[in-house]
Amino acid sequence: MVGGGQGAFIGAVHRMAAALDGEIELVCGAFSSAPAKSKASGEALYLPASRVYGSYEEMIQREKQLPEGERMDFVSIVTPNHLHFGPAKAALENGFSVVCDKPLCFSMEEAYELQRLVRQSGLLFALTHNYTGYPMVKQARAMVRNGELGKIRKIVVEYPQGWLSTKLEDSNQKQASWRTDPQRSGIAGSMGDIGTHAENLAEYISGLQITELCADLSTFVPGRLLDDDGNVLLRFDNGAKGVLHASQISAGEENNLNIRVYGEKGGLEWHQMEPNSLIVKWLDKPKQVLRTGVGDLSPEAAAHTRIPAGHPEGYLEAFANIYRNFAICLRARLQGREPDPIYQDFPTVGDGLRGMRFIQRVVESSESDQKWVPF
Amino acid sequence: MVGGGQGAFIGAVHRMAAALDGEIELVCGAFSSAPAKSKASGEALYLPASRVYGSYEEMIQREKQLPEGERMDFVSIVTPNHLHFGPAKAALENGFSVVCDKPLCFSMEEAYELQRLVRQSGLLFALTHNYTGYPMVKQARAMVRNGELGKIRKIVVEYPQGWLSTKLEDSNQKQASWRTDPQRSGIAGSMGDIGTHAENLAEYISGLQITELCADLSTFVPGRLLDDDGNVLLRFDNGAKGVLHASQISAGEENNLNIRVYGEKGGLEWHQMEPNSLIVKWLDKPKQVLRTGVGDLSPEAAAHTRIPAGHPEGYLEAFANIYRNFAICLRARLQGREPDPIYQDFPTVGDGLRGMRFIQRVVESSESDQKWVPF
Amino acid sequence: MVGGGQGAFIGAVHRMAAALDGEIELVCGAFSSAPAKSKASGEALYLPASRVYGSYEEMIQREKQLPEGERMDFVSIVTPNHLHFGPAKAALENGFSVVCDKPLCFSMEEAYELQRLVRQSGLLFALTHNYTGYPMVKQARAMVRNGELGKIRKIVVEYPQGWLSTKLEDSNQKQASWRTDPQRSGIAGSMGDIGTHAENLAEYISGLQITELCADLSTFVPGRLLDDDGNVLLRFDNGAKGVLHASQISAGEENNLNIRVYGEKGGLEWHQMEPNSLIVKWLDKPKQVLRTGVGDLSPEAAAHTRIPAGHPEGYLEAFANIYRNFAICLRARLQGREPDPIYQDFPTVGDGLRGMRFIQRVVESSESDQKWVPF
Amino acid sequence: MVGGGQGAFIGAVHRMAAALDGEIELVCGAFSSAPAKSKASGEALYLPASRVYGSYEEMIQREKQLPEGERMDFVSIVTPNHLHFGPAKAALENGFSVVCDKPLCFSMEEAYELQRLVRQSGLLFALTHNYTGYPMVKQARAMVRNGELGKIRKIVVEYPQGWLSTKLEDSNQKQASWRTDPQRSGIAGSMGDIGTHAENLAEYISGLQITELCADLSTFVPGRLLDDDGNVLLRFDNGAKGVLHASQISAGEENNLNIRVYGEKGGLEWHQMEPNSLIVKWLDKPKQVLRTGVGDLSPEAAAHTRIPAGHPEGYLEAFANIYRNFAICLRARLQGREPDPIYQDFPTVGDGLRGMRFIQRVVESSESDQKWVPF
Repeated sequence: MVGGGQGAFIGAVHRMAAALDGEIELVCGAFSSAPAKSKASGEALYLPASRVYGSYEEMIQREKQLPEGERMDFVSIVTPNHLHFGPAKAALENGFSVVCDKPLCFSMEEAYELQRLVRQSGLLFALTHNYTGYPMVKQARAMVRNGELGKIRKIVVEYPQGWLSTKLEDSNQKQASWRTDPQRSGIAGSMGDIGTHAENLAEYISGLQITELCADLSTFVPGRLLDDDGNVLLRFDNGAKGVLHASQISAGEENNLNIRVYGEKGGLEWHQMEPNSLIVKWLDKPKQVLRTGVGDLSPEAAAHTRIPAGHPEGYLEAFANIYRNFAICLRARLQGREPDPIYQDFPTVGDGLRGMRFIQRVVESSESDQKWVPF
Repeated sequence: MVGGGQGAFIGAVHRMAAALDGEIELVCGAFSSAPAKSKASGEALYLPASRVYGSYEEMIQREKQLPEGERMDFVSIVTPNHLHFGPAKAALENGFSVVCDKPLCFSMEEAYELQRLVRQSGLLFALTHNYTGYPMVKQARAMVRNGELGKIRKIVVEYPQGWLSTKLEDSNQKQASWRTDPQRSGIAGSMGDIGTHAENLAEYISGLQITELCADLSTFVPGRLLDDDGNVLLRFDNGAKGVLHASQISAGEENNLNIRVYGEKGGLEWHQMEPNSLIVKWLDKPKQVLRTGVGDLSPEAAAHTRIPAGHPEGYLEAFANIYRNFAICLRARLQGREPDPIYQDFPTVGDGLRGMRFIQRVVESSESDQKWVPF
Repeated sequence: MVGGGQGAFIGAVHRMAAALDGEIELVCGAFSSAPAKSKASGEALYLPASRVYGSYEEMIQREKQLPEGERMDFVSIVTPNHLHFGPAKAALENGFSVVCDKPLCFSMEEAYELQRLVRQSGLLFALTHNYTGYPMVKQARAMVRNGELGKIRKIVVEYPQGWLSTKLEDSNQKQASWRTDPQRSGIAGSMGDIGTHAENLAEYISGLQITELCADLSTFVPGRLLDDDGNVLLRFDNGAKGVLHASQISAGEENNLNIRVYGEKGGLEWHQMEPNSLIVKWLDKPKQVLRTGVGDLSPEAAAHTRIPAGHPEGYLEAFANIYRNFAICLRARLQGREPDPIYQDFPTVGDGLRGMRFIQRVVESSESDQKWVPF
Repeated sequence: MVGGGQGAFIGAVHRMAAALDGEIELVCGAFSSAPAKSKASGEALYLPASRVYGSYEEMIQREKQLPEGERMDFVSIVTPNHLHFGPAKAALENGFSVVCDKPLCFSMEEAYELQRLVRQSGLLFALTHNYTGYPMVKQARAMVRNGELGKIRKIVVEYPQGWLSTKLEDSNQKQASWRTDPQRSGIAGSMGDIGTHAENLAEYISGLQITELCADLSTFVPGRLLDDDGNVLLRFDNGAKGVLHASQISAGEENNLNIRVYGEKGGLEWHQMEPNSLIVKWLDKPKQVLRTGVGDLSPEAAAHTRIPAGHPEGYLEAFANIYRNFAICLRARLQGREPDPIYQDFPTVGDGLRGMRFIQRVVESSESDQKWVPF
């Protein structure tokens, strides 16, 4: 693991998600660029001191020299955005597959380079757009693909949060601090941090691609350096229209990612905060509430469910589905066989590249007088 | 009453709303442009034949000749859009106050003329943007005005319906037929029919005015002549940003008008389909659910509530609040006194004019390559 | 109308419910046992002074002397429980049909006598167990009757309120005052006021009858004279089991009547506070949410719905369905024809008698050491 | 681990819950009474063959002989009810602390013996009444203890499931099979399996104890040998009244454990299927929705929350809280220090004993003509 030392948020999430299914064991880490902090973090995680490194470069070089079967199988990167590219590149160049937090990296150049390295190396690369790991998101995607809704006409995807309603970055809040800093976050704030999740979810469920967009980004908190709110009109490659809005100043909202997809025959509605329900609305038939584990769901939904209906699975379980699928595919790769296609289902470097382009395009559109910017 | 003969929808709604509080009695009508139908409709409503007229012109002339105290006190206009202007003008010119269904009329010219006639006559004019009649909408407006949310930053208002997902106008469905016909509905379909409700609600609750917009209207059902879906970015006069989308092809949606308003200190959420709850979200405090009739609500909310908490009031009660307030104000006017300001609260010809301009601007914007169109 | 003078709650509800559909007109009343108050109330309701009476006896005698077509068609009784019997008896003995608030009366003796008078006179008698007027309650009843749930096994019906959590009767609150007074309310408090609604709803929807019960009534507020909470185990005539609990000290509850009915194949759930949804749960199939006005509902549900889906109908509309059905049946009776069976659907004196017995039995059971008391 | 071989449900839950926080590692197991199955299960869990045993007796003896630091630290028992006592007794007698699935055991005699062994050995014993592990349950308990609701008056606790609506035990469904078998489950079916969870939750949150009860148990599915539904009236030691009902034939219900607690000042409502919300209702103040991770919650709620608000934690996280607290207390014990009291919070052998008595009393009550049975 690269990053995720004491005080970090997403590092612990990755560790819990990886541990849940008993398929992945944390064996080493460079948890901080401060060697002492890395060491303390490793100790708290019950790692032997010999596997706790002072930098990702050291970790990759030293692990590479360990005998096969003993060295790490892959690298998890859980650092802020500007520190994704370095370790990802080093890992890929040294033969390690990668799990990387989103967004993919810091710039389009980095994104293209990572895509090139993945293709060239043939290694696995998973990007943790974790919200696609929920069983009911899989179900939604399956229903759209099976044509149950008919041709898709409209998509509304929202990601309101309220935690940056005040200038939290002026306190020492670590999460707020790097997310609002152009040096570490990139050219976008809320649009990069959560807008990309919304974009990814919409494309994942609908199977469509955004072709044009029109964005209005705002910075509401005085003195903030990046956008903290954005509203975007979307057009998709099949003629569907859409709305995407994401915000970190929607006061009182927790983490309210949600999506509605309407086709000719019916509509879907899913809310991340009640992730085990998928509401299905029909023309002139009663609304249905599909529930994780209840009735005849798609094989994709079933394969990503651990426990019986009514025992709620949450964020960590969905996140763990990314890791579990990655582990299954990696194991298959190491054993020279094809994994079951149902598990070949995690966000890839290609998704990461689309996310980076989304960031670029919404910023570009927001600054433009032209109505539509091609994606 | 003008319009609302047998087979109509909104006419019966107006009659029930007007009757609910025992303050208004239906005394006469020109229920259809077909005299026989008008007559049959009047009979079914237990009106004496002498007060059932073959046309609105006849009604207004004949009623005017009745002695005061016997003749009608005001005119309700419940016809399709293209037939609002004629009876409204005639009523105002002959000294009758008016309640008129929305949108105000057919064109901006008509709108300006009606505004002029209202001003000149000093008569009352109510436009039935009925959704502002709900107690919890009054509560939301009061909370914004009192500064409880701080400065408003973002507004999301939605009005999805699904009933026009197929080409219903090809059957004989009366409601679908005129609403999708440019000759009767005007230059917009869904945007005029329901988009104006959304626009009115957003401005009513927030006390803000839209200054610029960017719209993307669509006609998804092949062969349909007017928009059946629209997505709009909004900018408000205090710097707030917004999203408005309205649709009649959101398959499976009933009549799901809803709004969220976010300020610096908190946010509000209201759904027309569960109108007795107003969700209030705070920065770092528990979410509250305000309910009609529970606890210390604003005087405005209390004045528009009829029955104790937990006895749900619905669409007709909200609609009746428009009529009740209009009746109170009209009675005060007839008695030469000022009505209690709390009841001087119904949509006016000015709101109607803004609605007509909204229609004009979204159509204009949708056809334009320019990003922002001033309101 | 008997009762319902200024300051009363349920009288205004009856008037609004009766007025809504334009089928019933308030023509006279004895609104209070205090003649001056009755007079003032009548005036505020725009009644001519000649039709406002000082007592129900006077009203019935004087109206009876008016020519047919001019005199009142029926009597509405909206007084406290101990004042139902007198006017009901007088009305029935003088040829007037009756609408009476619930519970039926004060004692079993009165109940039997009223049943006898109704049978003997052949007049109509409606008891306003208004919650059975909701379209989705009709739908639930139809689904059970059609066997869609299979044989019913379990019923859970709840009616929690919180408004009597403190000793409100010590203030001058009129509603609290008579409801907690054995001289005016009868032998039960919460069980009579709202427990009977729960009992009626369970039997109406399920088509079953309670055969045995086991009750534990409590008075939580010190000094209160009647029960303010009760928990009851039920057994039904087909072998189904049930739980009924009603309370007026469930702090923070509004008027949360709700019911769940489980059969061999599926279950139903309905909440009075969101009355336009009926949740249907199936063995191994997705849950459905049936909604007023959406899709193929039962004819009974459709016949009791006024406006399109998504325009919420509430308490007054359900109450109005009782009045509307009563009016239709009364008109048919006056015209000497059979009403459409779909409208022969309002609670009768027989339902009232069951309610009175329910009150008697739960009080008896609560005082007994014996587990089961036959109904 | 004892039990939990391939095909089991709760064994995998225990393993995921134990693994989540990186504090507990599965080191050995006797996963099945069939040695070959135990071996295969252990292999699938990546355990060395040497630590996979053919029986719990073998496991305990062999592990005991391993050097300290190498041998297991405690035993998890995840077998059906009739197989709890044997391994628990053996573990306690050989110096191993125990985590045991609920209900505690098979008979009152076994329960008393286990309580005696725990007291005598001074070892730790945790019973996985996992629903008390949810942060919002901790919050509810804290609010009651702090007197925020005033004196508690009424408790309604429900646990409806529908999965045994048909005679599933006649198929080869392993879960249904042992749960409906008196030889393996004990004297109660649904009341032992889920009724005890409801009883435990009510006492945990309220801090009260049941003193009397009156039960009506049923077996609805023909040929079933144990109760599949039960309705119970409760009385608590402070004078509060309650209702508990649990069912496995409530067709269409998933795992709908929920509770409402009403005091003099307000009420609480919590639903296991939406576990991150705690609804708080007040006399004459707006309802609040407390949410995991939002605002100033109790220290107990905060200490059992892993991730930020709006990232839903579910069943496994709550279950993991039991394991995590047990691990913290065990580690403190091994290190000879007192654990932080906030983590000394998991169900004990004493809770298990109360659960066994609850089973005994409801069965006794259900067969009795006497109304109240002392607890």
